[in-house]
Amino acid sequence: MSEPVDLNVGGFTRLRIDFGYDGTDFFGWSKQPELRTIQAAFLEALTLIFGESEIDFSLRVAGRTDAGVHALNQVAHFDLSQTQLARLGRETIDDIAYKLNRLLPNDIRVSAVGVAPEGFDARFSAINRRYRYRLADNLSFKNPLETRFTLDVAGQLNIEAMSEAGSQLLGLHDFASFCKPREGSTTIRELQEITVSRGQGQVVEIEIQADAFCHNMVRSIVGALIAVGQGRATPAKIKQLLEQTNREGSYKVVSPHGLSLLKIGYPADDQLAAQAEKAQNLRTLDEN
Amino acid sequence: MSEPVDLNVGGFTRLRIDFGYDGTDFFGWSKQPELRTIQAAFLEALTLIFGESEIDFSLRVAGRTDAGVHALNQVAHFDLSQTQLARLGRETIDDIAYKLNRLLPNDIRVSAVGVAPEGFDARFSAINRRYRYRLADNLSFKNPLETRFTLDVAGQLNIEAMSEAGSQLLGLHDFASFCKPREGSTTIRELQEITVSRGQGQVVEIEIQADAFCHNMVRSIVGALIAVGQGRATPAKIKQLLEQTNREGSYKVVSPHGLSLLKIGYPADDQLAAQAEKAQNLRTLDEN
Repeated sequence: MSEPVDLNVGGFTRLRIDFGYDGTDFFGWSKQPELRTIQAAFLEALTLIFGESEIDFSLRVAGRTDAGVHALNQVAHFDLSQTQLARLGRETIDDIAYKLNRLLPNDIRVSAVGVAPEGFDARFSAINRRYRYRLADNLSFKNPLETRFTLDVAGQLNIEAMSEAGSQLLGLHDFASFCKPREGSTTIRELQEITVSRGQGQVVEIEIQADAFCHNMVRSIVGALIAVGQGRATPAKIKQLLEQTNREGSYKVVSPHGLSLLKIGYPADDQLAAQAEKAQNLRTLDEN
Repeated sequence: MSEPVDLNVGGFTRLRIDFGYDGTDFFGWSKQPELRTIQAAFLEALTLIFGESEIDFSLRVAGRTDAGVHALNQVAHFDLSQTQLARLGRETIDDIAYKLNRLLPNDIRVSAVGVAPEGFDARFSAINRRYRYRLADNLSFKNPLETRFTLDVAGQLNIEAMSEAGSQLLGLHDFASFCKPREGSTTIRELQEITVSRGQGQVVEIEIQADAFCHNMVRSIVGALIAVGQGRATPAKIKQLLEQTNREGSYKVVSPHGLSLLKIGYPADDQLAAQAEKAQNLRTLDEN
């Protein structure tokens, strides 16, 4: 990431930021008047470093998380004009991460900033997203340092049944039964992986990866899996729910605080632009 | 822990609580007027369940942690009269943990409550205490969900040098160079184990176990090890510091927020009373 700045689209250089946040005290990613959001925190920090931007630096994130949702490895991009870049003076692109961490609040942490490869769009070039949901049941150690990102549930979860139910959802489906609908958006998604296991302290971790998620999809699936884990539903019921493609009889959308974005997947550099064009046509109006 | 209540000392039954807390928003364990402390939170919850107690339930903790220090496995005891126990009605001792978790704030979590074995004293029967200190340096992943319990340090720490420095401190010594002195207290302690390693996300974890710690001892040792890790001191310098048995030239006492009490060790049940008597004679005036 320390190559000389050579990407120059319409006079702008696109940078990629890798970062994470504790979502507890944020009203999600997207800027909203008067509310503390992650996008607003970044815009404020970028403005302090590079000056005012009428186009808000074209800042765009890979996964626009809801209020209370966390991220360990989130990705965004932003664009700088040559004039803005010049404000770095003798500092380099690599120093931007350090500068951002000094200006951003402690619950946002930047791991890296670098020049993006050609054709890169943080949101539309992404080919998959991976999330984790953490559940503490009666078997789990009650770790007070993890309550901010772990949901407490009653009883003892049946992990095997939850795994079986999860595997019913794998593949390309219309996930309308698990999505909050949005006008003009498709709810067809490809669920690529879903695992349910007990980690450290016997905490139940659900990891779930898809090309993209529609609104509330992960938290809606987790709600259904909890019902299975507690014996209130069978894996067959989950399959039936998927097939009905509407939200009738669906399970509770669980609290955002147990959810963390783990990883954004991108294709090889020479496919970034093509993927961005494809995705933008498909899902412009969607929540990722 | 579900045996019938049969221990009855002077009309009182002694119970053991296993619990933990996120120390961020507490002014430490010990009750202080007007301040949010862990002891005060427990006394309030116990009073709601068992009624007023003039002797504050004889509540005593194994390790009285300072403001901002966390605990994953802390231990305390408290005593109930037969009248207080009767208030449980048809509920059992096992239900107390559940009741406490409903009444306590979320940043304190109880794992278990049970009748203590004969002669048990949470503080004085303990034979050792184990703490962990977490450090994030330039190599570490900046996990925003861990900033509340991890100290950021500059540069890249030399783990091998830190390990070597730590091993200079092993054994029975007068740790006066690493303790905030208290009148009437000895600073002789047995350091039983100290390890420095990189864990998940390359976070540096220092684990340290002693029979007991004098005031500020762990944070003072960690400050010295950071100096070694950053090349500002040598392992030989740490040995020299230990031998001088005063605080001249000692290193910074680091922030409490990186510190967590991991575990309290107790002897076999038939040695609990003897250990309690021995320790109480030795260290009544001490901080554990």
